[in-house]
Amino acid sequence: MSSRTKIKALLESGKTDIDVTVKGWVRTFRNNQFIALNDGSTNNNLQIVVDFENTDPALLKRITTGAALSVSGKLVASLGKGQSVDVKATSIEILGDSDPEKYPLQPKKHSLEFLREIAHLRFRTNTFGAIFRVRNTLSFAIHTFFQERGFVYLHTPVITASDAEGAGETFHVTNFDLANPPKTETGEIDFKQDFFGRATNLTVSGQLEGELGAMALSDIYTFGPTFRAENSNTTRHLAEFWMIEPEMAFYDLKDNADLAEELLKYVIRYALDKNKDDIEFLSQRLLDEEKQKPQQDRSELNLLEKLQFCLDNNFERLTYTEAIEILKESTPNKKKKFQYLIEGWGTDLQSEHERYLVEKHFKKPVILTDYPKEIKSFYMRQNDDGKTVAAMDILFPGIGEIVGGSQREERLDKLEQRMDEIGIPKDELWWYLDTRRYGGCPHAGFGLGFERLVLFVTGMGNIRDVIPFPRFPKNAEF
Amino acid sequence: MSSRTKIKALLESGKTDIDVTVKGWVRTFRNNQFIALNDGSTNNNLQIVVDFENTDPALLKRITTGAALSVSGKLVASLGKGQSVDVKATSIEILGDSDPEKYPLQPKKHSLEFLREIAHLRFRTNTFGAIFRVRNTLSFAIHTFFQERGFVYLHTPVITASDAEGAGETFHVTNFDLANPPKTETGEIDFKQDFFGRATNLTVSGQLEGELGAMALSDIYTFGPTFRAENSNTTRHLAEFWMIEPEMAFYDLKDNADLAEELLKYVIRYALDKNKDDIEFLSQRLLDEEKQKPQQDRSELNLLEKLQFCLDNNFERLTYTEAIEILKESTPNKKKKFQYLIEGWGTDLQSEHERYLVEKHFKKPVILTDYPKEIKSFYMRQNDDGKTVAAMDILFPGIGEIVGGSQREERLDKLEQRMDEIGIPKDELWWYLDTRRYGGCPHAGFGLGFERLVLFVTGMGNIRDVIPFPRFPKNAEF
Repeated sequence: MSSRTKIKALLESGKTDIDVTVKGWVRTFRNNQFIALNDGSTNNNLQIVVDFENTDPALLKRITTGAALSVSGKLVASLGKGQSVDVKATSIEILGDSDPEKYPLQPKKHSLEFLREIAHLRFRTNTFGAIFRVRNTLSFAIHTFFQERGFVYLHTPVITASDAEGAGETFHVTNFDLANPPKTETGEIDFKQDFFGRATNLTVSGQLEGELGAMALSDIYTFGPTFRAENSNTTRHLAEFWMIEPEMAFYDLKDNADLAEELLKYVIRYALDKNKDDIEFLSQRLLDEEKQKPQQDRSELNLLEKLQFCLDNNFERLTYTEAIEILKESTPNKKKKFQYLIEGWGTDLQSEHERYLVEKHFKKPVILTDYPKEIKSFYMRQNDDGKTVAAMDILFPGIGEIVGGSQREERLDKLEQRMDEIGIPKDELWWYLDTRRYGGCPHAGFGLGFERLVLFVTGMGNIRDVIPFPRFPKNAEF
Repeated sequence: MSSRTKIKALLESGKTDIDVTVKGWVRTFRNNQFIALNDGSTNNNLQIVVDFENTDPALLKRITTGAALSVSGKLVASLGKGQSVDVKATSIEILGDSDPEKYPLQPKKHSLEFLREIAHLRFRTNTFGAIFRVRNTLSFAIHTFFQERGFVYLHTPVITASDAEGAGETFHVTNFDLANPPKTETGEIDFKQDFFGRATNLTVSGQLEGELGAMALSDIYTFGPTFRAENSNTTRHLAEFWMIEPEMAFYDLKDNADLAEELLKYVIRYALDKNKDDIEFLSQRLLDEEKQKPQQDRSELNLLEKLQFCLDNNFERLTYTEAIEILKESTPNKKKKFQYLIEGWGTDLQSEHERYLVEKHFKKPVILTDYPKEIKSFYMRQNDDGKTVAAMDILFPGIGEIVGGSQREERLDKLEQRMDEIGIPKDELWWYLDTRRYGGCPHAGFGLGFERLVLFVTGMGNIRDVIPFPRFPKNAEF
């Protein structure tokens, strides 16, 4: 096909008086003369100036919102406001019509809820174009960060036979005819006849397999889909979401926290550098949205300021025990404003407590460490106090937990004892225990919820708006 | 923890007479004096020279194959052969023991079959260390290629409600108790009560959703897991594998083939640059393996030569129709050596035919285009001859099909007509058809099977050896 220039490249080129061909979709068409054309390469539309007096009226009628066009013409310095260059069209070809009566995306403001219903078309809006370009940049920033540091990207399995982490309900994966699965003589489902010869489910985490890689390659990371069959209809949960899970041999908890903080700052900076236009647009979108709210509910910082603030400050590090003291003495606790009052040591923190610490008390990201072992997973390294484990959670303003990690228990006896206490079958995890039997070593890792990161960087409020086709209870459309 | 230097960085530093700390796993320990230490950062071991006369004999006994060590000492020019530098140890700490009687990886050659049984430890061998470092590099090369060209990485859903491609058997995903799923009044499974309110399965391809992205963002690619519930126990099939699926607006079939060829060459070159040591090792491994074979079954080119050959030659492009002519006139067809004889136009090509074209006739990668529409998918663009579609397959020596793609049918009437002919329910794909209703445009895309690419670049023979934890019939271990 005749070669075309993408609009982003063209706007950045600084050139004028050259012949160009551009292709994209009509956003608006004003006065039979000015087409705002977008091709998804940037949030900025290219203005096409149509010589309407010398253009077939039948063609003009087909230049409607959503139509796909190929336009050739001359790139010239713009006479209008809001753009530096225009294309004076010499030829316009309609590649695909868009019936203005039926096209669901009218040139007006649509609600995010409505756009979720037409997720196949919402990429064509300024908001979602920006979100998915930022999401793309964050993905690549994550890869680049780890590659620069010699980490190996490891594809851990999606279908697994273990729900070892006990991280919640899993989805079953089966090849059976659900109406008529084979049964054993005693009437139970005969999983030996299933595709994998055993019961299988969708992974909740690649961590345990990731550790196997780290015990040979030193530093690995995963970046893949994970699943929870939890019936949570919230703005922060998805049934299918992407996680980044690095595992590092010879790291302790402090190394782990250092790496996580470095990673988060790196990728935020990367997005600010690469997607300035998109983030500025999203920052303005958020300001407009917040204008609907009463003054006291609006953010103190706009999105750009919030991101910059994250880069300019060290994350606050404190232990769970220290956090409990702060919370116990806090005004909302004393005035019984918390839904769950903090009375003593040992209970898990609720979202309201995390938000108090991050948004009110420290006013910056917080790394909480050394949680009670009872509220954390079996594989976390037991501290010498006999009560806590070398866990860490990173809490972000507006988001809550964005990273959860720990130093891993490398001592076989301690690990087996804890598995026995909690009732985790050791024979199912023989391979995990093997890495403690043969050349185990201190090591650590964490999981970063990718969509929560995208939420934070885009300033969006609902996690369903930062993944192309969200999966949640009663919804698997597209 | 005390900082350490990775062995790769240390071997590349060119420095000597500096104090270093290294951490890794013992590969071998000779004469109570020479430790070959590996930390996974490179295939090359670091030689540690132990001052055995001044080292506690109890410690020496614990330096066994597989043990994890921390070693501090001085980096010095090596007196021995095979390495440029040694570390003269001043202190050795055992981080994790490895009982030499029980450790499954003895310092000898193990079969690939045996290593597959202990996939959690095979990362610690030279072969698998090299494979997974190359796999890592290829992953990043793919991202880099697309990012350099302004493509948006799109995470298409893993759980879907459609098996629209009809690409084969899918795995069911359900939240039901399999022993007792809810039924409707008429006795059918009541999927309305399932997690997503409908029957769902694991995706076989992200293409259809990818096209939705391309119809707004111009150029997108996916890189994610895909699934087939096919009972194929072959060296080329997995139940869970990773695919790269770019979709490009305003591309025709030739643009599509150009991009695919450019991508394949780019990533092979990238791996040769970044992982020379690993690929040289794998090349030698393959030579050793082939020595077991009779002369006439050995490859003409070694692995390095084969990869270089791919870079230096244009892929051969021809139509299916031309290929059929060549095959019909070929010696194996005339001498009835093919299992499936080529008698006329219209049947699908078998692996033996593809191999003949690639390995015997053209002796290079081949791009076959314009297949009969009956043997290809409904979404491929219909050619004017009424018989063929604008499809392309890229065939690689030893691998067979590594890429499959097409120009997509953008004309709503043609697409609907074909769906009707084949019996694909249009109402289920309303969103796919919408992109043809509103601003459709010529576009194209392809799928690259990632494990087949890794097979090709590593010279391995079994696809189960190039993914960390393979999933195949009766196997979901680890």
